[in-house]
Amino acid sequence: MKLNSLHDLLVEELRDLYSAENMLLKALPRMAKAASSEELQAAFEEHLTQTEEQVRRLDRIFKQLGAKAKGKKCKAMEGLIEEGKEIMEQDGDEAVLDAAMIGAAQKVEHYEIASYGTARTFAQILGLDDVADLLQETLDEEADTDKRLTEIAESANYEAATVGGEDEEE
Amino acid sequence: MKLNSLHDLLVEELRDLYSAENMLLKALPRMAKAASSEELQAAFEEHLTQTEEQVRRLDRIFKQLGAKAKGKKCKAMEGLIEEGKEIMEQDGDEAVLDAAMIGAAQKVEHYEIASYGTARTFAQILGLDDVADLLQETLDEEADTDKRLTEIAESANYEAATVGGEDEEE
Repeated sequence: MKLNSLHDLLVEELRDLYSAENMLLKALPRMAKAASSEELQAAFEEHLTQTEEQVRRLDRIFKQLGAKAKGKKCKAMEGLIEEGKEIMEQDGDEAVLDAAMIGAAQKVEHYEIASYGTARTFAQILGLDDVADLLQETLDEEADTDKRLTEIAESANYEAATVGGEDEEE
Repeated sequence: MKLNSLHDLLVEELRDLYSAENMLLKALPRMAKAASSEELQAAFEEHLTQTEEQVRRLDRIFKQLGAKAKGKKCKAMEGLIEEGKEIMEQDGDEAVLDAAMIGAAQKVEHYEIASYGTARTFAQILGLDDVADLLQETLDEEADTDKRLTEIAESANYEAATVGGEDEEE
């Protein structure tokens, strides 16, 4: 696709997000399963439900734009999820692994915040108010999720700080 | 490396960042070269100088922690840079491509903001005040860069909105 207009770029950005959200739909159940703290598990499960709605919202946006709802493989999200997977496969203390997983999840949220923020601004400039409103709704949800993860991290990090000693340098 | 303590996790996070910053050192000159607007070019060039200092700051932190300064391949940053590369290889209007590149750069900044924020919090909890201060310095710089990119985007997006028509769906 040639990027000849801001409209083209908006569609491109939305396809990146569509791919990112669909990857996340597959990753979140695994993350919930791997979390030790019940609070973190619940947060991942609720974010899964939210993500399903966010994908439906993207479907509605594509329809409004008259563009095909399809993904354009989001390599950044692929890398972010890969990093989450690495944590899940690592050995260590439960509390420390939970703290690591929260960090990985917040990186995912920040990626989405940057992407939805950009797409929302493009839609505003193009005068596509309905689209901008829908994107703002998701943006608010992502920001809330990030905030909630920060709250969970507060207790998780202190728990992680009480365990283990310093490892020898490998 | 086993994640047995929050100290282990801090070192792991710093190695991820060390790899990310070093990848960025290679990508920024290419991004500056590809940018059409002089303002954007200058922003990328200045951020390159800043990134060089941020890598030196990480070197000092590793020394203070008695850990080896080495990277652990940051797959997320690899994906983020890959997306930037795709934009540089795309055809289209100059103003639209600049707007796309700003979006890609802001995703990079958000990744770093999330990572440095997490690492700074770990250092604070561990009572490593000097390390936390150094990480906070970089965190503030990344946030400033993100803000500057938002300012540049304001004019760039409006310019992008004036060009081209809507493309046919491919």
